[in-house]
Amino acid sequence: MTTTTIKVDGMSCGGCSSRVGKLLAELPGVTKASVELEPGLAQVEFDDARVDLDALLTVIRDAGFEARTPAA
Amino acid sequence: MTTTTIKVDGMSCGGCSSRVGKLLAELPGVTKASVELEPGLAQVEFDDARVDLDALLTVIRDAGFEARTPAA
Repeated sequence: MTTTTIKVDGMSCGGCSSRVGKLLAELPGVTKASVELEPGLAQVEFDDARVDLDALLTVIRDAGFEARTPAA
Repeated sequence: MTTTTIKVDGMSCGGCSSRVGKLLAELPGVTKASVELEPGLAQVEFDDARVDLDALLTVIRDAGFEARTPAA
């Protein structure tokens, strides 16, 4: 199991952040996702045998947000 | 050129609606997209030789919203 933190830019309300969390959590292999509107961070725990970082970034970007790692 | 109206549920701020509009406008074949947060409607003009209604609905759903036609 791997845990990563992704910087997510462009979220402007609680609906945005909960939507990003839901999209991440729906990805097969993701075991936990929590997203904070401020300062725009997603913390994701995933099984790296089933899903990779690129897939996490892609689902966020397809939702219309900017996403990058490392988050710092 | 075809114009359609899509009901979009789940948008909760102006960031949500502008993001949906941007994602639609970026689809090749879409010539115009305007989205209203209230009452949750997207009006899309598109070249139906290049893109179809299913593609419009898919890009909205992939962004985490519900989308359906007819809008009424």
